Amino acid sequence: MTKYLIVGGVAGGATTAARLRRIDESAEIIMFERGEYISYANCGLPYYVGGIIAEREKLILQTPGSFKARLNVEVRVKNEVIGIDTKNKSIEVKDLINNTSYTETYDKLIVSPGAEPIKPPIPGIKDEAIFTVRNVRDTDKIKSFYDEKKPKKAVVVGAGFIGLEMAENLHHMGMMVTIVEMADQVMTPLDYEMAAEVHMHLKTKNVEFYLNDGVSEFNRQGDKLNIHLQSGRKIDADMVILSIGVRPETRLVKEAGIDLAPNGGIKVNEYLQTSNEHVYALGDAMAFPHPITGKYTNAYLAGPANKQARMLADNLVNGHTKKYKGSIATAIAKVFDITVASTGLAEKVLKKEGIKYISNITHGASNAGYYPGAMPTTIKIMFDPETGKLFGGQIIGYVGVDKRIDMIATVLKNKGSIYDLQEIEHAYAPPFSSAKDPVNQAGFTAGNIIDGLVNIIHWDKLHQMDASDNFILDVRTPDEFELGKIEGAVNIEVDKIRERLDEIPKDKKIIIYCGVGLRGYFAARILMQRRYNDVVNLSGGYKTYEHATC
Amino acid sequence: MTKYLIVGGVAGGATTAARLRRIDESAEIIMFERGEYISYANCGLPYYVGGIIAEREKLILQTPGSFKARLNVEVRVKNEVIGIDTKNKSIEVKDLINNTSYTETYDKLIVSPGAEPIKPPIPGIKDEAIFTVRNVRDTDKIKSFYDEKKPKKAVVVGAGFIGLEMAENLHHMGMMVTIVEMADQVMTPLDYEMAAEVHMHLKTKNVEFYLNDGVSEFNRQGDKLNIHLQSGRKIDADMVILSIGVRPETRLVKEAGIDLAPNGGIKVNEYLQTSNEHVYALGDAMAFPHPITGKYTNAYLAGPANKQARMLADNLVNGHTKKYKGSIATAIAKVFDITVASTGLAEKVLKKEGIKYISNITHGASNAGYYPGAMPTTIKIMFDPETGKLFGGQIIGYVGVDKRIDMIATVLKNKGSIYDLQEIEHAYAPPFSSAKDPVNQAGFTAGNIIDGLVNIIHWDKLHQMDASDNFILDVRTPDEFELGKIEGAVNIEVDKIRERLDEIPKDKKIIIYCGVGLRGYFAARILMQRRYNDVVNLSGGYKTYEHATC
Ligand SMILES: Cc1cc2nc3c(=O)[nH]c(=O)nc-3n(C[C@H](O)[C@H](O)[C@H](O)COP(=O)(O)OP(=O)(O)OC[C@H]3O[C@@H](n4cnc5c(N)ncnc54)[C@H](O)[C@@H]3O)c2cc1C
Ligand SMILES: Cc1cc2nc3c(=O)[nH]c(=O)nc-3n(C[C@H](O)[C@H](O)[C@H](O)COP(=O)(O)OP(=O)(O)OC[C@H]3O[C@@H](n4cnc5c(N)ncnc54)[C@H](O)[C@@H]3O)c2cc1C
Ligand SMILES: CC(C)(COP(=O)(O)OP(=O)(O)OC[C@H]1O[C@@H](n2cnc3c(N)ncnc32)[C@H](O)[C@@H]1OP(=O)(O)O)[C@@H](O)C(=O)NCCC(=O)NCCS
Ligand SMILES: CC(C)(COP(=O)(O)OP(=O)(O)OC[C@H]1O[C@@H](n2cnc3c(N)ncnc32)[C@H](O)[C@@H]1OP(=O)(O)O)[C@@H](O)C(=O)NCCC(=O)NCCS
Repeated sequence: MTKYLIVGGVAGGATTAARLRRIDESAEIIMFERGEYISYANCGLPYYVGGIIAEREKLILQTPGSFKARLNVEVRVKNEVIGIDTKNKSIEVKDLINNTSYTETYDKLIVSPGAEPIKPPIPGIKDEAIFTVRNVRDTDKIKSFYDEKKPKKAVVVGAGFIGLEMAENLHHMGMMVTIVEMADQVMTPLDYEMAAEVHMHLKTKNVEFYLNDGVSEFNRQGDKLNIHLQSGRKIDADMVILSIGVRPETRLVKEAGIDLAPNGGIKVNEYLQTSNEHVYALGDAMAFPHPITGKYTNAYLAGPANKQARMLADNLVNGHTKKYKGSIATAIAKVFDITVASTGLAEKVLKKEGIKYISNITHGASNAGYYPGAMPTTIKIMFDPETGKLFGGQIIGYVGVDKRIDMIATVLKNKGSIYDLQEIEHAYAPPFSSAKDPVNQAGFTAGNIIDGLVNIIHWDKLHQMDASDNFILDVRTPDEFELGKIEGAVNIEVDKIRERLDEIPKDKKIIIYCGVGLRGYFAARILMQRRYNDVVNLSGGYKTYEHATC
Repeated sequence: MTKYLIVGGVAGGATTAARLRRIDESAEIIMFERGEYISYANCGLPYYVGGIIAEREKLILQTPGSFKARLNVEVRVKNEVIGIDTKNKSIEVKDLINNTSYTETYDKLIVSPGAEPIKPPIPGIKDEAIFTVRNVRDTDKIKSFYDEKKPKKAVVVGAGFIGLEMAENLHHMGMMVTIVEMADQVMTPLDYEMAAEVHMHLKTKNVEFYLNDGVSEFNRQGDKLNIHLQSGRKIDADMVILSIGVRPETRLVKEAGIDLAPNGGIKVNEYLQTSNEHVYALGDAMAFPHPITGKYTNAYLAGPANKQARMLADNLVNGHTKKYKGSIATAIAKVFDITVASTGLAEKVLKKEGIKYISNITHGASNAGYYPGAMPTTIKIMFDPETGKLFGGQIIGYVGVDKRIDMIATVLKNKGSIYDLQEIEHAYAPPFSSAKDPVNQAGFTAGNIIDGLVNIIHWDKLHQMDASDNFILDVRTPDEFELGKIEGAVNIEVDKIRERLDEIPKDKKIIIYCGVGLRGYFAARILMQRRYNDVVNLSGGYKTYEHATC
């Protein structure tokens, strides 16, 4: 009979315990959780704050009682593990109810302590109107503050996925919301020009945001909290949500002499085993080589934590048979009416890592244009310039973003390429897609670039360029051209190109653009086959250019 | 300069023409279409009839004029190709406007003539109130009949995807709709117990249907059409939609001495080349070995036609470089409030083909249960009993069916297995999925079956069995048990099993079931590890059993 101790009773911990029991009915399994609850839906917390999830009970999927009844797992809540003695294979536990300590021995120790919100030592940060969102207790605090103080104005510091979910939910509660973010964009997993679409959407919702700015001080002034930004700007708020990121909970293992990875997470091998053979780690706190960069990375996501847990339980019971392959970090968030998703690596990361890549943006629609409800969908993919191997994908849209990022993630996870995207046989009927899904189209367009059928230029390069050296050719209709154009562009619509070739110089670089890239590609094909040697098409067309430069 | 002639101007034909032009600006391309329109949205036709697509223009994506302007392709509508002279590499064309004939020579001939609705020689079938739905003209006829005669009662003969789409649209127009279907179920790509969920849904919509029945005669009686069924039943209708299937349009190539495949489609090799090296075929009319069975099959789907077209154009211009791999026939339909989808092979086909497989059904939810809008989702997958290689998938639900069938199709297309389903790193936030997506869960459950962690039994086997030989164990709560149970079952809820083991006999086969299969699996694990040697869990639980047997 093997004795398993598990530190942390939520995504990684509880799921490991459950699978352990299912495959080993006779094992002794004890799960330690320092908080009051186990198995709660962290991911639902912002929606519970906002009232979208109305019942608090719904957040708590299992209790110590139900865990005992169904899985015969002993759960000790309000018990914090405060030390690991790897030599004697025991842990020290602090019983937070009785304020006593005790030790417990293990055969195998599983550590899934998660990550804690970062709270930098900014003056005033301990103010009672400043909140973080990690667990049920945090949301209880926010909700009772709300009920008591009826805050009208909230500031969200940090505009990652959780920050934006909180912004939406506070807005939903009727608050005026301001976002403060250090980077030049919200949602750092996205690249800038994709985030620009989110910026536009936030504006339509009257959410104020300050980019390239951070908090230097919180200053209480009576009922109000005065927030000083590094730029010198000052803003007022009734409450603040701090969501500037998380830090893996590694103190426990570090003090036990277990190795951390260079990035600060708990280093494990492909069996999720730490540097101590009897101690395993998973979830947010664990670092594993990224499938593309090979660098140790943490995945702060529930899906990977849950899947790691199942694999780990199998390896614990059956021996090391299943290898973990690392996470591609597929993530998604609803941000008001739009959905934002990403998988794999962003362009900026590829650049930083010195990995050769091509990136491309296509705009499509969520279903056939002739059927009601077709909504714009922007897809960016990154891939190997030679093999087409997929490195990453980002999607923004209104409907079906989840499905399309899942298609891309499925290919990426399988180390597939843009050619696999081309061949996906998706389900097509008018309410759901087009005969060629936007993901297929992203694959086709990428293939054309690799094959040299078209060369592309990106909005930022074009924006920085001296236009006068080139011939900028707008192939949209005169009406579209009238409504807004790139400085210096000449308008010849795509359908007239063959007749008006003499207006297009052969001795200049021809930079073509249209609305989204499609007609520009058609025009590029005509010119490239008529001895224009230096022709490029603007990736994502005027739409991306306009979003990114406005 | 190569001269391409293309027969058929819609999905396969028009797309081939478009890609041909993009990669070969100098080619001569002439496209022949016997109808009035090219590039129309066949798939939108039912919705145009129903008024969901309000504007007729929307159905027609390109015109001969726009094709000429943008792609410099010559389009000859109302020109029917009536003969192929492979020796002289020419075709004979009938100009349907002037009623004249002419020949045209080709370097390469591309044939994408599609498939025509089957109209069996049933007495009365030529009645003016009987319609098929293939092209814009057909829908024009239906719409003007509707405007003139204001039909109140419609009969749809044949309940495939198009039949059900038509049923929904006629219902939407206010008609009372009756479906007549020869098989014992609607939607033949599905297996029976999955179709049973569609049957239930149709009932809630007051759509009448007669299964296991066919039409023996149409009999006009004044304003009414009297429909005699083979069972002897007679039903009245104001109009009839005939949607009992399609037949590939092969007359043209057959008469030219080009080989057909055993199934009757136009036989091609992996470059979509027919038995004549200068003639290529694609789309509905073309037959290609199925990726799993290896048998020649037609794919009557727009996605494959469009993708074949692009590949074919590339091979025509660049030589035979891209190989077609066959279609896994992913299909989807909205049927009133539910969505029904399938990919790969159904269980019944695997059975017929003598391919060893396991099938399993799981019921999940479209998103996290604690977030509003989680809707039931039923997934059935078929896989290799040893390797777990995926053979097919079927899904029924309300939301996200399209995304989940696409996940399965992406893996299946890539010849992946249920282990790939387990590892999909899907996008998870509460509005979109759960930390383990239902598709992951389908993979986990399948893995458990292969690994022998659980044995399953199917509803039909249990239904036919003599219950008294076995111990049928219902592990739901007493309340659930009260509301409906399987004859002869004993109720011990899962959480009490460990305490009540002595009530469960060791010398009988134990057949466990719960609501959907999850608690049954947990119970099975407990018993199997406590020396119960013959334990099976009901796949899909009581839910599938009830649907399939009611
Ligand atoms: C507000 C919010 C929204 C999120 N939304 C999403 C989303 O939409 N999608 C997504 O994929 N992910 C989301 N996440 C992330 C996801 O919740 C985590 O990735 C996942 O829960 C990590 O699992 P874990 O087991 O590593 O840590 P956790 O689930 O955080 O569990 C760790 C537990 O360990 C306990 N613990 C720590 N140290 C000790 C100790 N020494 N002794 C005893 N107990 C200890 C902690 O109290 C905690 O309860 C969200 C997270 C938050 C906070
Ligand atoms: C009502 C309906 C709904 C559908 N819904 C869906 C759906 O939701 N999803 C899906 O994937 N598929 C759907 N389909 C199927 C899809 O439309 C076809 O698979 C696809 O159009 C096949 O392309 P094709 O080029 O082979 O044939 P088609 O698109 O049918 O084109 C063939 C054309 O060739 C012409 N032609 C034939 N013979 C000659 C000749 N001798 N000379 C000149 N012209 C000729 C015909 O007039 C026809 O216009 C639907 C089909 C219909 C009819
Ligand atoms: C609640 C919790 C303990 C459940 O863990 P779990 O039992 O492993 O997970 P599930 O309830 O999803 O059940 C999965 C099991 O049921 C099986 N299963 C699922 N659907 C099934 C069906 N229809 N029929 C048969 N078996 C089924 C799966 O195969 C799996 O079993 P396995 O791992 O032995 O193969 C754990 O997920 C948890 O604590 N979650 C909350 C914390 C969290 O994840 N937070 C972050 C997200 S908000
Ligand atoms: C209308 C029709 C002629 C269009 O054919 P098409 O031009 O090949 O197809 P699309 O309009 O989807 O354009 C696809 C091309 O644009 C490119 N593209 C798509 N989005 C792009 C973007 N945002 N930027 C750059 N290029 C883009 C693709 O790469 C592809 O080009 P390629 O094949 O040379 O690689 C053809 O699809 C048709 O007749 N359809 C109606 C019939 C039909 O399909 N019926 C059944 C379904 S209802």
